[in-house]
Order: sequence, then C-alpha cells, then structure tokens
Amino acid sequence: MEKRFEKIYDTTRKVKKDLSSLSIFGGASTFQYPLRVGQMNLVEWDRFEAIFRNIFLRRYYTNHGPMAKELESQLCNFLGVQHAVCMSNATIGLIIAAKALDLIGKVIVPAFTYDGTVQSVTWAGLEPLFCDINPETHHITSDLVEPLLNDNVHAILGVHMWGNACDIKGLEKLARRRNVSLYFDASDSFGCTFNREKIGNFGELEIFSFHASNIINALEGGCVCTNDDYIAARLRHIRSSYGADYPIPMLMTSNGRMSEAQAAMALLSLADYQRNRQMNQEKYELYHALLKYVPGIRLLMPREGEQSNYQNVVMSIEEDAFGISRDNLISLLNAENVFCQRKPILGMHRNPPYNIKFPQYINRLSATDAECSCVIQVPSGQQISMDNVRDICGLIVYIHEHALEIHGKIENKKMMF
Amino acid sequence: MEKRFEKIYDTTRKVKKDLSSLSIFGGASTFQYPLRVGQMNLVEWDRFEAIFRNIFLRRYYTNHGPMAKELESQLCNFLGVQHAVCMSNATIGLIIAAKALDLIGKVIVPAFTYDGTVQSVTWAGLEPLFCDINPETHHITSDLVEPLLNDNVHAILGVHMWGNACDIKGLEKLARRRNVSLYFDASDSFGCTFNREKIGNFGELEIFSFHASNIINALEGGCVCTNDDYIAARLRHIRSSYGADYPIPMLMTSNGRMSEAQAAMALLSLADYQRNRQMNQEKYELYHALLKYVPGIRLLMPREGEQSNYQNVVMSIEEDAFGISRDNLISLLNAENVFCQRKPILGMHRNPPYNIKFPQYINRLSATDAECSCVIQVPSGQQISMDNVRDICGLIVYIHEHALEIHGKIENKKMMF
Repeated sequence: MEKRFEKIYDTTRKVKKDLSSLSIFGGASTFQYPLRVGQMNLVEWDRFEAIFRNIFLRRYYTNHGPMAKELESQLCNFLGVQHAVCMSNATIGLIIAAKALDLIGKVIVPAFTYDGTVQSVTWAGLEPLFCDINPETHHITSDLVEPLLNDNVHAILGVHMWGNACDIKGLEKLARRRNVSLYFDASDSFGCTFNREKIGNFGELEIFSFHASNIINALEGGCVCTNDDYIAARLRHIRSSYGADYPIPMLMTSNGRMSEAQAAMALLSLADYQRNRQMNQEKYELYHALLKYVPGIRLLMPREGEQSNYQNVVMSIEEDAFGISRDNLISLLNAENVFCQRKPILGMHRNPPYNIKFPQYINRLSATDAECSCVIQVPSGQQISMDNVRDICGLIVYIHEHALEIHGKIENKKMMF
Repeated sequence: MEKRFEKIYDTTRKVKKDLSSLSIFGGASTFQYPLRVGQMNLVEWDRFEAIFRNIFLRRYYTNHGPMAKELESQLCNFLGVQHAVCMSNATIGLIIAAKALDLIGKVIVPAFTYDGTVQSVTWAGLEPLFCDINPETHHITSDLVEPLLNDNVHAILGVHMWGNACDIKGLEKLARRRNVSLYFDASDSFGCTFNREKIGNFGELEIFSFHASNIINALEGGCVCTNDDYIAARLRHIRSSYGADYPIPMLMTSNGRMSEAQAAMALLSLADYQRNRQMNQEKYELYHALLKYVPGIRLLMPREGEQSNYQNVVMSIEEDAFGISRDNLISLLNAENVFCQRKPILGMHRNPPYNIKFPQYINRLSATDAECSCVIQVPSGQQISMDNVRDICGLIVYIHEHALEIHGKIENKKMMF
C-alpha cells in the first residue's frame, strides 16, 4: 500500500472487506438510509413555531407582506446590495430578470449549467447561444465569450457554477466594451465572494436560488439582486401580477411572489447561515483531506482568499487514473445508498429542445462534453455526518484500490443480462 | 321610508347617525380594523403543527414529495378528475398550460379578467385576442367568440369569472366544430359546478388558484386539471425543471413546483372546504337579503341548481339608481375601513402593454368597459363576521338613502382642494 494512503485507510478501511461485500455484487448497503446531495437543512421547531404563529395571527399570507419585506431588508444587509427582490423560485426569477432587462435577440450562456438557466432565456422569448467552459473552473470566460459576440447578441448570462465566481472582471470589461447586458445565475452561490465582495453585486443583476438544496432554504424560492433602482422597480412590477406602485408602462407581469411562509423559512435559514456554512466547510475539508491523494479524483476547491458556502462538493473523475468510469462509480455508490448527482446531466446543448433546435453545438463544446462525462457531486448538508463522509471516502478509495477487479466483475455482470 | 327597507334599517340603522359621522367627512371609522376582500382562512394550530412536524421529520421539502402527491390524489377524488397537477401559483400554471397544449398564434380571451389570464398568453409567446362579455354573467359566450375566429386563432381561454361557469357547452361545441383548443381559467371556481359536474373537468384543461384569497389556500399555489393523460404528462414535464420520468421530447421546462409546505396548507384547507363554503354561503345570503331591494345594486348570484364556493361577493352599482358612483362608494367605504376591490381595474385591453400594442380594442368592448366601471367586490371570508356584513350593508343602505347630500358634500370637498 502506498504510504500516502495510509491515513485514509486508517479511517476508512472498515467499510468493505472484500468485493462480494459491495452492494452492487450482493453485499449489504453501507448506509441504512439514502444519503443525498443537497443541504435540506432543518430549523429547530420552536423557532419555526414562533415565526409561523405570527403569520397566522396577522393573516397576511402573501403579496409582499411583512416577512417578505423583512427578508429583503436582511438580504440587502447581508449581501451589501441595494435591492434584493424575492421570487417564487430561481427559474421564475431568471425569466423575470430577462424581461426586466428588456433583452432582445440572443443571449450567450454556458451549456454546462442547470436547466433553468437556459430555459429562462427561451421563456423570455430569447435565443440561447451556447458557450464552452474552462474545464478547470466549469465557467465561461471573456476569452471564450468574445468570439461569439455579434450584432444579434445583446446579453451574456454568466453562471457562478458550484459557488465559485465566474470570470466577473473579464466579462464586465467585455460587456462594457461591446455594449451588451451582463447578468449572472448565482443559484448556488449565496454568501460566496469575488474579490472579497459578496456575489449579488455584479453585472446588472444576479439571481440566487433558495430551493431546499441550497444553504438559504425557502423550500422553494429565489431572489434577484441588483444595485440599479430602475431595474429593481421593473423586477418588482413584473413579479406582482397587478403591477407595483412605481408606474412603469409597457411591461409584462407574472406572478413571481414569495409567500410569507417562504420568506419566514428563508429568514430562519439566513440566521443559521454561519453555522451551516461552518458545517459545510468541515465536511468539505474532510472530503479534501481523505481524497486529495487518490489518483484520478480532482475536487473543485473554492478560490483562494474568497468566502464560500461550501455547499457543493464536486469532483471530476478521470477514468484512466481512477480505474473506474464516473458512471460506474455512481452505480457502485448508489448501491451503497450514496446518491451522487451528475449535473448537468448532458450539457444543455444535448438536451431537448436545444439538441433539435440547435444541432450546430453537438460536438462543438469539447470542454463541456468532457466535464459532463466526468463530474459528480457527493452528499453534504445537515443530514450527512462527518462519519458518513469518512465512510463515503472509504468506499471511493476501496473502489479505486480494487478498480481492476471491480471493473471486470461489472462487465461480467452486464454480459449475463 | 319605503316599506321594503324597513327590515334592513332594523338591523343596520345604528351604523351612522348623520352625514358628519361618515368617516370621509371626519367621523370615526365604522370598523377598527380593515375588512378586506379574500378568504384568508386560518387552520387550527394543532393541525398545522402535526402536518409540518412530519415534513421536518422527513426532510423532503419539495420536488413532488409525499404531501404534493397526497394533495393531487385528494384533489382528483374531490373533483372527479383524472389529473390534478399542482403548481407554484395559478399564473405559472396558466403559462405552463399554454405550452402543454402546444399552442401557436392567437388565443381568444376576455379582457374582463385577472391580469394573469392575459399575461399568461403573452408569456407563452401567443397573442391575446380580446372578446367582450355578457354583462349579466361577466363571461364570454360562444356567440361573442364565434365572429372572432379566423385561421390565426388556435385556442379559446374562457374564464369562469367569480366562480360561475362560463358558457361551457356553447364553447365546447364551437371549439370542436372549428377545431381550436379550449381551456379555462377557473382561478376562483374551486368546488363550483356546471350541469352538476365539478369545474376542473371541462375543456382540455382548467386552472385553479390556491392563492390565500381563495377557498383552497396554499398561501401561493395553483393546480391544472385535465382528463387527458398526454396533456397531464406534458404539464408534469414542464413543471419539473429537469423533466419528468415520462419521456417527452422537444418541450420547454420551467419551475412550477409546489413545495411540501404549500401542499400541506392546501390539504388542510381542502379538509375544511365544506365548513368554509358553508360560512361563505351564509354571508352571501345575508348580503343578498339585506341589499336585494336597494335600487341600483345588482348582486351576482350563483346559477340556480349549481354548487358554488360563495367566496366572491360581487355587485354592480348602477349610479343613476343608487345615487352615488361606484368609485365614490369605494372611497366612502374605504374611509370606514371596508376595503372593497374593483377588479379587473380597467379591463386588460386598457392596461399596458395591451392598450399600446392593441389599440384597436379601446372603445370596442362596450360591455367590458361598462362592467369595469361599476363592479365592486365586498369583504367575505373567515375574518368577516355576520355582524360585519350587517354593518357593511347598513353603510351601503345609508349611503344610498343620503346619496344626494353625500354627493354634494363630496363635490364641495373636491372643490376645496
């Protein structure tokens, strides 16, 4: 055994004794209950009861009520931003944002992102123009975007994938120089910084998700942040169904309202932010410590000197070095009740309707395709203990160490069917 | 005093002694707290606690979880419909519905409706074609729709305004004969019937709102009902962000998910449906009994032999007969802390962006314009007591009886500013 693995095996070797004890080959699952990706954080019942009893007393249930206003005010303080406009969910926020920016024509967007990023562009009546990513960061950069600009392109929608800021400085310069709009999908980046300034302050606006899988949890929810008063007024107007007070002619409206219940949940988790961030960081660092020497695994790290919420633990699996493909690793872990996610599943350029509407991108986004085939996100969040992390890493190391035999056994098993 | 008013004055004459005791002229408000339109129903804390503690225990917060499934199943039973697809809110439901029906071109829709009805058509990339209404029912009819049909019209979006079914039979026949899609905005019609069959079963699909102002209250929420398996699969697919299990190519997706918290709230109010309907009916009948002989007031009644949720108490004010304009009545009542709504405020054809984009409708929808200028909705719902209803009616009758003096005093007051 290599010296550098010793410490890992010290903490993890008890997970599996031999190949046949792997669940995929008939052994018992390592975990009794499914371990899943996503924060799914809980608040203490007493705090929940206090805030919800007040909502019931007031009988003010939605339409930008006192909880929603309090949340927006606290978000502005926390992020140091002028306007935080809360929404039903981040996808609705992205769609409303595109309308608030009054965009037309084409929008440059990475194909390596969540469905909502690209779908929002289509719902707003715009055409996505797919940009490849830097494989190290999973982000678009100004160098990749610039060659795609032309007279029909009026906006760039950057994505701070996994909570790291994308090439904000480069894209801001480029957008100014070429006179196009710039906004960011910051779905999973709440609390993260760029140049020590909180994300939420960049571009014309930025969108956060408060889906339960994120560190701020409204069950469903989201928020659009901007430092531009006029854009904020447009956002509020479109969100409100019947139009906001500030009279803005010629705008569409939708219902992007956040209910008082959603706002209350988000307020509770905002109060827990530092505690939950700390727990995420401890698990992140444990994953890193236990896996950093395993060949073929590259853990994406928050950028040096920046703050992170550490909610996404994301790795690239290089099959040749690791010995097992990403897809087989996922199957092996699933069998042990570890549900890793491979997101984005294919890259949006390979998903309908985009693969049919825009076939020109197939085989043209090489870094996106490569990363889509090797990325996994491993469980973290309140439901995952430090021992769970040790055992998950133990499984991964065991799988690496016995890769050749496992690979053979899986291929045999496939042939039997 | 006319004989027919005697009973009314018996119960209501104590509200105001003389003109100067009207709040608009400096008297104390009749009500200490604002009385508002909308159900805003409450559930008992114990029931709320039981259902929410379970959500916390499960830590399954959204993405079509057990509460959402239970709600959809109970809605199907209650309505006798094959599919109830719950949504974030009714506007998102309407938008997703238009995409699920794969509509193109123009959609006939009343201008006399909520913003969301018409806005949903625009968000789905379609063009609304405004139809006038029957002033008695506030609904479009097949007679009004037929002359508007042409090769560019591919759908009719009917609205069961105020909980009464619109001309379903006539529109169904017309849609079949002319081969256009037919669907209904049933936002405020949950539990109401047409030909003794529950609304939710008509057209290709129907959309309910579970906004807190409705009898089913998810704070924010909605539901699309259909008896067509394929349409239901498309609805679920679009709702889900990442696509549903049933593989449907070439579809847009959005996030229309209902969280477990929303579903739990809706389940609680579904259990209370009969109780709340009964309370609504008692208030409705009291309004009717106390106002039916007042000249110039026409209370919209549920259709004979049909079930209603009685949640909307809606009246037309004919100024000549009543003695005071609708707008002045609203101001007088507002001053007494009675917040009536005038909805739709102008008619959607007079609201931006439609008044600018489609100026051809201005002055062309005479019944819509007439009804928009005389309709008010008076408070009902759990927060309004029977005594509140008696006092509101007392105010209205007092205002009618002293219309001439009040009118003069209001005009004088206006001249002073």
